[in-house]
Amino acid sequence: MLHAPLPLTEALLKLRPPGSSADEEIAVEMPVALTVNGVSQAVMLATPANLEDFALGFALAEGWVSYPGELLDVETELRPQGIELALTVTATREQSLKLRRRQLAGRTGCGLCGLESLADFASLRPPPVQAPELAPGALARAMAELHSAQVLNARCGGLHAAAWCALDGALRLAREDVGRHNALDKLIGARATAAGGPAAGFVAISSRASHELVHKAAMAGIGLLACVSAPTSLAVSTAQGLGLQLWAFVREGRATRYA
Amino acid sequence: MLHAPLPLTEALLKLRPPGSSADEEIAVEMPVALTVNGVSQAVMLATPANLEDFALGFALAEGWVSYPGELLDVETELRPQGIELALTVTATREQSLKLRRRQLAGRTGCGLCGLESLADFASLRPPPVQAPELAPGALARAMAELHSAQVLNARCGGLHAAAWCALDGALRLAREDVGRHNALDKLIGARATAAGGPAAGFVAISSRASHELVHKAAMAGIGLLACVSAPTSLAVSTAQGLGLQLWAFVREGRATRYA
Repeated sequence: MLHAPLPLTEALLKLRPPGSSADEEIAVEMPVALTVNGVSQAVMLATPANLEDFALGFALAEGWVSYPGELLDVETELRPQGIELALTVTATREQSLKLRRRQLAGRTGCGLCGLESLADFASLRPPPVQAPELAPGALARAMAELHSAQVLNARCGGLHAAAWCALDGALRLAREDVGRHNALDKLIGARATAAGGPAAGFVAISSRASHELVHKAAMAGIGLLACVSAPTSLAVSTAQGLGLQLWAFVREGRATRYA
Repeated sequence: MLHAPLPLTEALLKLRPPGSSADEEIAVEMPVALTVNGVSQAVMLATPANLEDFALGFALAEGWVSYPGELLDVETELRPQGIELALTVTATREQSLKLRRRQLAGRTGCGLCGLESLADFASLRPPPVQAPELAPGALARAMAELHSAQVLNARCGGLHAAAWCALDGALRLAREDVGRHNALDKLIGARATAAGGPAAGFVAISSRASHELVHKAAMAGIGLLACVSAPTSLAVSTAQGLGLQLWAFVREGRATRYA
């Protein structure tokens, strides 16, 4: 059975499968609710580690704030059903969120962060980004270092990781989560508050390349995304539209540029 | 560049990466909006194949209908920004959906199908299910046949698959999608309308075992889920709570039962 209660900062959990004589570690996935100035906004399923990074990265990706200084505070509280991240944003930001909520009044949303119509989908468009110039071998180095940085995944499998890498591929920051979008949100949050501010670089990620990853990266002003596995058509066309350089199948000495 | 316009039934797309001399195939991911009796409900990113199965499976998993007969019609229309699936449900069902919408009025939702609070998350609980008895070797056989059934994935990578298998592991139905949840929705829809109705069996899936897969399976009355990769903590505890038998790491002669 699952051990309870779960410590807030525990990203892995020991359990003993039925019929087994030894414990195994598995990745924790739990509901994480985000509120902004007291108003519920979203519930995600995430791994409870680096949740302050997650709060900031998610807020940036959703456009709730446009730079870290607009997020005044994040309180993390354990509730019976999961974790609540209570974000406090500036009064100016609160006004614009209220406006947005009023426009969405009476709707239910699903799948794409509260969107419910194709018109909503088309209206979400980050500003174009600029791709950086990489040093030779940077992609392969980034992927090798990303693999070494997946410390939680090495213990139990089942987690994705996103890393911020310098132009020569040296890994600067990495974050892990059961969800690939969450891993990128956490990385974006960590990068936004890193000492000295974000330097030039790119994101390496352990997953496939989907539309949402390209979109989140562009919202954070990131110009190059390198993924271990296959791209989707929408990831490619979104990257083309935004000027984001998209690399996929970056593994085993191979790398294909798709946009 | 991407070839345009995209035929509605095209699950794969040819493109020529910059600097390459040959076309490659990639999996199509596009916005698919679902409306119920004319009212917008959700936008998902999905692969445009087996969309009628997707509509029914999604409607069952969301509780929009409780059996296939309540879904009277699905119309598939290509719009400038994506595909619209226009579902028509019975008048009784339409009434209960209207009630649900009124309760959600004035909220925005994200991540978990329109949920925005932890209380909403806890209130979503399918009825318990019964796990079937499998024949020896059924899990290994199911995974081998699932691998052979991934015809789109074999061409381009990047797609997940879900299969409905008999108690001896023989594969009966399989569906593919860029999203693992979508693949399961499509399978659930296909299974619900299969000739003779759903016989005894279980679901095999090419991905990790997350909470949402367990939840969707239970909503469809499925009692056993076998996954290629790692489970999450919430997948295990949800499965325990519902009586669903959860197998993970079903690969390379191995299989671990977690619930």
